[in-house]
Formats: sequence, C-alpha cells, structure tokens
Amino acid sequence: MTAYQLGPLLYEGKAKRVFRTDQSDLLAVEFKDDATAFNALKKAQLQGKGPLNCRISALLLEHLAAAGVPTHYRGIDGDRWMLVQPVRVIPLEVVIRNLAAGSLCRQLPIAAGTPLKPPLLDLYYKDDAFEDPLLTEARLEWLALVTGEQRLELERLARWINALLRDLFSGVQLELVDFKLEFGFTTGGEMVLADEISPDTCRLWDCQVEDPSDRILDKDRFRQDLGGVIEAYGEVLKRVQGVCPQPRVYR
Amino acid sequence: MTAYQLGPLLYEGKAKRVFRTDQSDLLAVEFKDDATAFNALKKAQLQGKGPLNCRISALLLEHLAAAGVPTHYRGIDGDRWMLVQPVRVIPLEVVIRNLAAGSLCRQLPIAAGTPLKPPLLDLYYKDDAFEDPLLTEARLEWLALVTGEQRLELERLARWINALLRDLFSGVQLELVDFKLEFGFTTGGEMVLADEISPDTCRLWDCQVEDPSDRILDKDRFRQDLGGVIEAYGEVLKRVQGVCPQPRVYR
Repeated sequence: MTAYQLGPLLYEGKAKRVFRTDQSDLLAVEFKDDATAFNALKKAQLQGKGPLNCRISALLLEHLAAAGVPTHYRGIDGDRWMLVQPVRVIPLEVVIRNLAAGSLCRQLPIAAGTPLKPPLLDLYYKDDAFEDPLLTEARLEWLALVTGEQRLELERLARWINALLRDLFSGVQLELVDFKLEFGFTTGGEMVLADEISPDTCRLWDCQVEDPSDRILDKDRFRQDLGGVIEAYGEVLKRVQGVCPQPRVYR
Repeated sequence: MTAYQLGPLLYEGKAKRVFRTDQSDLLAVEFKDDATAFNALKKAQLQGKGPLNCRISALLLEHLAAAGVPTHYRGIDGDRWMLVQPVRVIPLEVVIRNLAAGSLCRQLPIAAGTPLKPPLLDLYYKDDAFEDPLLTEARLEWLALVTGEQRLELERLARWINALLRDLFSGVQLELVDFKLEFGFTTGGEMVLADEISPDTCRLWDCQVEDPSDRILDKDRFRQDLGGVIEAYGEVLKRVQGVCPQPRVYR
C-alpha cells in the first residue's frame, strides 16, 4: 500500500488523535492510552490500551469489510495508528443492545442480562455539552441531522453489523451485550461505519465465566474499578485475532 | 348531583390525596397546598395552592368536556375537593411542547421560547424511582404499557387537548408553552384524560409582559425561586374563569 506522510493534527478526542496526511483521501488516527468514563469525569492512563484498541478495531473492521459493510477503515501502521477515509461524522451515537445493561437498567425496570428481542436500538445526540441525550424520533427529526431515508439506512447498517459481530464473538465464547457505533458520509455521499469498535465501545462478557464481575471484558472494568482492564482487552484480542482477516498494513 | 360519603384514603401523591367514596364509580381528590419540584428534592407549603389548582383544573376540565374530550372529571365540592371517575392510570407522562423550555433546552441545542411546529410530543415513563425517563418508541413498546393503537389514541387526544387549551389560553393573553397530561382507562375500557391541568402541570406565559421572568405564571416561579407563586396562580384563575363553564358542584 502507498506510503504516506503525516500532516497536521485535525482533531483530538478523548481516546484518539486524528491527523491529516499528504493524501486528501486518507487520515491517520492515533489511539491514545487515555481512558475516560462518565462524560470524562473519570480519567486514567492505561498503558497499552491504545495499541490493543487499535488492533482489535482493525480486526473487527476487516471482518465487517470482508462481509461487505461499508467502513471508513483503510489499514493500520505500527501498533497504534489506523488509516481511515475522511468522513463527515453524523453526530449520533447508535447503540444496539442485545442484553440489558448499563444506563438502560437505571432508566427502565429491567434486570441486567435480560435478553432484548429484537435488539434495542437507541440513538443519542453526540454532544458532550448536552451529555449525549437519548433521542426520540420526533427530537431526531427536529435536529435534522439525517433525512428519514438516511435514518433507515443507518439503522439497517447497525442491525446488520450487530448480526455479524454477534456471530463472530459468539464463535470465540464472547457475548456481545451492547455496543456503540458512529457513522459518517464520505465525500462521495456514501454512508459508512466510522470510529472504532473495541472494548471501549462494546460490552463483552466471557461466556466461559459465571461470575457477573469476572466475566466483564470491557470498559466496565474501568468504570466500576474492577481492575485488570488491560488483561481483559488482551483476552478479547487473543480471541478475535484467530477469526478475523489480518489487518492491511501501510508502509 | 347526588351527595356522597367520603371513604378511606386510597393513595397519597405529592400534591393530592385520593379517597374512595360510598359510590363505586366516584373518587374524591383533595388538592394539597404542598409544592414539590425536581422529583421532590425541593418541597414547600404554599398556602392556597390547593384551592387554586382545584378550581383552575375544574374550569379547564369543564371546558374540555364541553368540547367532547373524555375525562375522569365529575365535579367539585368545596374549595379543594374534586370528584372523579376511578380509572386505571397509564404510567406515562404525556408532554406537549408548543415552545421550547425547561429540560428540552438542557437536552438539545434549542433556545428557550423557540416555537415547535408541529408541537413536540414527548412520552416519559412515570416512575419516580427511575426519575421519569424519556421513552423512545422502542422502549415504550418494550414496557408494553399500551398497545400501538392505544398509543395513537393517546397522542390524538393529547394533540386535540393542546389545540383546545392553546386557543382558550390565547384568548385570555396566556401562552401555553408546554404541559403534562396523564390518561387512564375507565372500568369500561375507555381511554380518558386523568389527573389535573393547572399551573403545576402547564408552563404559562403572560403575553402582556415582555420580561422573561415576570411573564412566568406557573410552577417555574417555585422551581426558580422567583416568588409570587400564589399571585401568579391567582392571575391564571382570574383569566380562565371568565371563559370556561362554571364547575358542577357536588352536595
């Protein structure tokens, strides 16, 4: 794959830095070791988290791309750099829940672990200043972030991705409890999957473990101070690397 | 109208007490002077609030009933008692917003006072333990509180009531900013308007006043410590009593 030159910093988020490159159709994303939770009220540095999330995301995005899902992913470079296509990100967090967990159990009378059939799809307005509020259809319409048709396309993609990832994880004894996706539009106007897919953005439970705390292999270990965050992320990587295509490497 | 005998206390809420009567098809509701806000974190006694809300509610419910809206309202008795039909209350707070205000402006980038066309209808799950969370269509479906058809009926009634009240208030120089409704099912299975309609449950702005604080004639005066709560409620009563049918009196 063509080599590239790193350009100026475009944007710094909580867990990633995005840089321009000398190629207009390529951005370079650096995965940081920073961990944040509760709208950044809780922060820490977790050595090795960046490379783990970069690798896990690359593997999962390769898997989805191989199945035909349109994504912004282009490849990796070294242990914490991902190359992606520039997209206009839609400021929506698309959350798909297969089992009840987290905020849902604080907002509705539903016990953690309850299966949701069909999977529940929640849309949140991605804006830290407003604390990422849940959107109803009418509120989404008012915000006019997407047309009605685009909304349906986004939901169709999200449910397809859920089906693909659920199958993939279940094959390596991981339960995909819920996860967050973001989408964007390419310069050509195509809606594609953006952002990362990692234990920072997915709840993953180890099917081989009974204990409700021990089975957690995702950011809830950090949120709930359970320890062993890096070990858990490493376990996820170990399992998925055997069942995904190897990431394309730049340089 | 037939006299009734007060029976045992059935339920005590934040602002009202509900009693059985010797008639199976009649409950007696006492309007208390208690004011609460922020899920009862803020509390006070406001002398005279009960009678004002009882009277204003009775006038508005008479107006709606005269237009054909099915309601639980049957009449009043004295200055703080309302007689109602027993209903199985649907645990939903139906909020209709004509102008943006309150929580909406903290959750979306929308300035207070912005007109919402069409009026925004929000459904909240009425449960203090969960802090009355906003519901999406999918979450409402999961809760299975109403069928899809009942949901449409409820929204149709709420929008009709909004049109009637907006017109009524606008005729007496009051702007109906937003308000909360509750519905229930009679023993016969009919969906009817329940609860009260008062400055505790409506945001009302005085069209004759420019100042954004001075124009407030509703519970926001209590929430925001603006003072003059009773005077504001009294002003609302003064204006609506000229344009509504007089309440039917029991005893």
